[in-house]
Amino acid sequence: IAKEVAKLLEMKAQLGEEGKPKFVLKTPKGTRDYSPKQMAIRERVFSAIITCFKRHGAEVIDTPVFELKETLTGKYGEDSKLIYDLKDQGGELLSLRYDLTVPFARYLAMNKITNIKRYHIAKVYRRDNPAMTRGRYREFYQCDFDIAGQFDPMIPDAECLKIVHEILSELQLGDFLIKVNDRRILDGMFAVCGVPDSKFRTICSSVDKLDKMLWEDVRSEMVAEKELSPETADRIGEYVRLHGGLELIEQLLQDPRLSQNKLAKEGLGDMKLLFEYLTLFGITGKVRRCWGQEEPRAPQLRMLTGFCVPQICFDLSLARGLDYYTGVIFEAVLVQQENDHVEEPVGSVGSVAGGGRYDGLVGMFDPKGRKVPCVGVSIGIERIFSIMEQKVEASAEKIRTTETQVLVASAQKKLLEERLKLISELWDAGIKAEMLYKKNPKLLNQLQYCEDTGVPLVAIVGEQELKDGVVKLRVVATREEVDVRRENLVEEIKTRTSHS
Amino acid sequence: IAKEVAKLLEMKAQLGEEGKPKFVLKTPKGTRDYSPKQMAIRERVFSAIITCFKRHGAEVIDTPVFELKETLTGKYGEDSKLIYDLKDQGGELLSLRYDLTVPFARYLAMNKITNIKRYHIAKVYRRDNPAMTRGRYREFYQCDFDIAGQFDPMIPDAECLKIVHEILSELQLGDFLIKVNDRRILDGMFAVCGVPDSKFRTICSSVDKLDKMLWEDVRSEMVAEKELSPETADRIGEYVRLHGGLELIEQLLQDPRLSQNKLAKEGLGDMKLLFEYLTLFGITGKVRRCWGQEEPRAPQLRMLTGFCVPQICFDLSLARGLDYYTGVIFEAVLVQQENDHVEEPVGSVGSVAGGGRYDGLVGMFDPKGRKVPCVGVSIGIERIFSIMEQKVEASAEKIRTTETQVLVASAQKKLLEERLKLISELWDAGIKAEMLYKKNPKLLNQLQYCEDTGVPLVAIVGEQELKDGVVKLRVVATREEVDVRRENLVEEIKTRTSHS
Repeated sequence: IAKEVAKLLEMKAQLGEEGKPKFVLKTPKGTRDYSPKQMAIRERVFSAIITCFKRHGAEVIDTPVFELKETLTGKYGEDSKLIYDLKDQGGELLSLRYDLTVPFARYLAMNKITNIKRYHIAKVYRRDNPAMTRGRYREFYQCDFDIAGQFDPMIPDAECLKIVHEILSELQLGDFLIKVNDRRILDGMFAVCGVPDSKFRTICSSVDKLDKMLWEDVRSEMVAEKELSPETADRIGEYVRLHGGLELIEQLLQDPRLSQNKLAKEGLGDMKLLFEYLTLFGITGKVRRCWGQEEPRAPQLRMLTGFCVPQICFDLSLARGLDYYTGVIFEAVLVQQENDHVEEPVGSVGSVAGGGRYDGLVGMFDPKGRKVPCVGVSIGIERIFSIMEQKVEASAEKIRTTETQVLVASAQKKLLEERLKLISELWDAGIKAEMLYKKNPKLLNQLQYCEDTGVPLVAIVGEQELKDGVVKLRVVATREEVDVRRENLVEEIKTRTSHS
Repeated sequence: IAKEVAKLLEMKAQLGEEGKPKFVLKTPKGTRDYSPKQMAIRERVFSAIITCFKRHGAEVIDTPVFELKETLTGKYGEDSKLIYDLKDQGGELLSLRYDLTVPFARYLAMNKITNIKRYHIAKVYRRDNPAMTRGRYREFYQCDFDIAGQFDPMIPDAECLKIVHEILSELQLGDFLIKVNDRRILDGMFAVCGVPDSKFRTICSSVDKLDKMLWEDVRSEMVAEKELSPETADRIGEYVRLHGGLELIEQLLQDPRLSQNKLAKEGLGDMKLLFEYLTLFGITGKVRRCWGQEEPRAPQLRMLTGFCVPQICFDLSLARGLDYYTGVIFEAVLVQQENDHVEEPVGSVGSVAGGGRYDGLVGMFDPKGRKVPCVGVSIGIERIFSIMEQKVEASAEKIRTTETQVLVASAQKKLLEERLKLISELWDAGIKAEMLYKKNPKLLNQLQYCEDTGVPLVAIVGEQELKDGVVKLRVVATREEVDVRRENLVEEIKTRTSHS
């Protein structure tokens, strides 16, 4: 009894003064539910992405949503503070995965896999400041494709960029730009500009902010906060405003300072190879842009002449925050959406994909430090979802959220048993069928249900039809009705719905 | 510099004495990775389940992996201790979802939805004692199908049971038994046996153990621990050994004690209706079982006569642990697997699906307590996976983990560029194509790769083929080779792989 009383008191405590529940009815901060309509759009996006990953011969794996806390330690630099930890309830200390790359590296090391091409689509977790209208969530999907193994240089790297290009083209999100750089070029550049070794990473994160901040502000941060000499900062400034294609790479290979640096030279050599492969893939060309009446907002883009812009661009300002990259890095941004009237700060065009080479990460997990070179890409689909949602909204396209082919209906009362028998026959024959869960539904309500949900056919049982051994099949769109012999009903439904 | 030194020291601290990492390379307790082969099997199971859910007209939703802690409070009875909490890192207190039912109810209340048929397939989390060889994990998938709304009695309930029957038949897991009961019958039975109201729930959990414990032991628990009089326990004992079909329901409706109890009478009346609907669905019949040489282990099954057993059975010993059920409850178990030579305790045949009616749960979330009646089923697929895995293992069936149609290969050296150009053409035409990431791979290695991974075709470029404007297409299985004009290659590959 004491237990029950305690339980009642606990229940009472949960209620407010007027008997209302005290708790707030919501999802956690930075998360959301997906409604059936949103799921329909999500499945379309996933389908396009998975089709592409499979086209490139990828296998698929899955890993747990949480990892041992120590598995994630020391992999994310300054972003580590954004990791969700689980409460210590006895046993292991756990954290929610922050990305799919570290679990992938852990998976490779644990299973001693030295060679795999896999994709992984799953949710990851970051205690970031959410900006949900712009598609930034604390729980969000990543669609990762990675190639692990010791191969000849830049062939897998080029394939990753080809994949980004294919997916963004396929999804028809408007114009996009894939920026490419290399950690070795960045490090070499820092070295020749006079940045002390110990400051490479922190200066790298300053450079990483160039997509959101003006150079002047980034420079101040470097000089004032990070104590770089103004001359060093200015030398960096000269480099990071550069972007272009093969000709820029050639030019930098001749650069008197950069060409003296081993790392930079390696990086530039590989970058040249990469652009040659991308040219063979046919994706280094320029595309015609339709600005409409507006001028591009991102200053970088304003600098590009005329109406032709490249879709892939070597960009020395691209840094990317994560610690584990060792070679090529890249990021894809959408440049100006049609109908995108939201005022956003200069340059905050949305990043929708990113990736790079991380040759040291697997070795961090291997007991003997054996390395497995890896390169991969991660498609961030939340922003893609919101764009697709807006598009669907604007197009007034009616999205069906079920695939039901036929509603089993009755014309008179007392036919529930007959409906149950018929629907069961249809289900067993693989027909997607529904019925209203009422004993005696009105025919009008049953037809209305089809109108509302887009069910194309109605199979109507009535007393006369039962006597005649037929079912009345009604086409919702045309209101045409035909009597179909019961034994032919399944075939008839299949034929009539095969086009959809 | 201080920062860098700290970082280095931190890195050093992570290393053991001999420079080896101290951490254990593993997934958290009770979790696992899915390899590509396991994923292929998993996708098959999902596909069968989703096809069934869609056949029944369900929409799909998704919810976050964690909920506000208070959302889960007071829903799971004694099992609440198994909930994973997140660490308090400032902000809201969160817990990982324990099932998909409570988030569904929260979703309905939050969006004021009073009418929906939806499925949801996602991972849930329980800090249970894992028994992974028997498919019991701390992170595991649930595949839920629920019908919410005010409808005529037992029609949606019957559909849920039909769905379980369809899925378990479709997956060909061997014989199964779906046990059905009703919370109202249980509560009525407790009342007429003389159990005090306050002990209903705790006696209910004792009854719930009957699938793992003998009646004598459950009885001792009731009398010794839960202080029930021996007479009351014995009266319960009379009832909980009963199981059967319509005739048992009729018999209990005449039972002098039960028929006097309002709840029990309601429950039995609905149970009768349910079995009538299930009969119309054609799933109450008995099926022939093949025992092989062995006798069934579960004592309940030994009591069933001969070789014919029902697939759906009204069983008064079924209780189910969760607090939120209010009406029909059910559970599906697999009864004796062929080739299942693992010694398991009597009766611990695996539960693979469960569900029931929970008419009060949504009301617990609604600010005004408005109720939305719900009934649903949850398919637990971990055990199904392990059975499918064993089946595949035993059958020596070779599972492909990619869908690659063609390998782009070269017969001589220095043809990397040509391979890149060709593969790019194929990708752009929607062909699933791979190539080896080597500058000059040996033809033999390329052919071997196809043998190993099941790629059916090889498109070989060579100097002569390039001159002639053709590609040599080789069928891996037959070693047949034909020259195909480059402009016809895509069509040729599509034709040759369309059957698979």
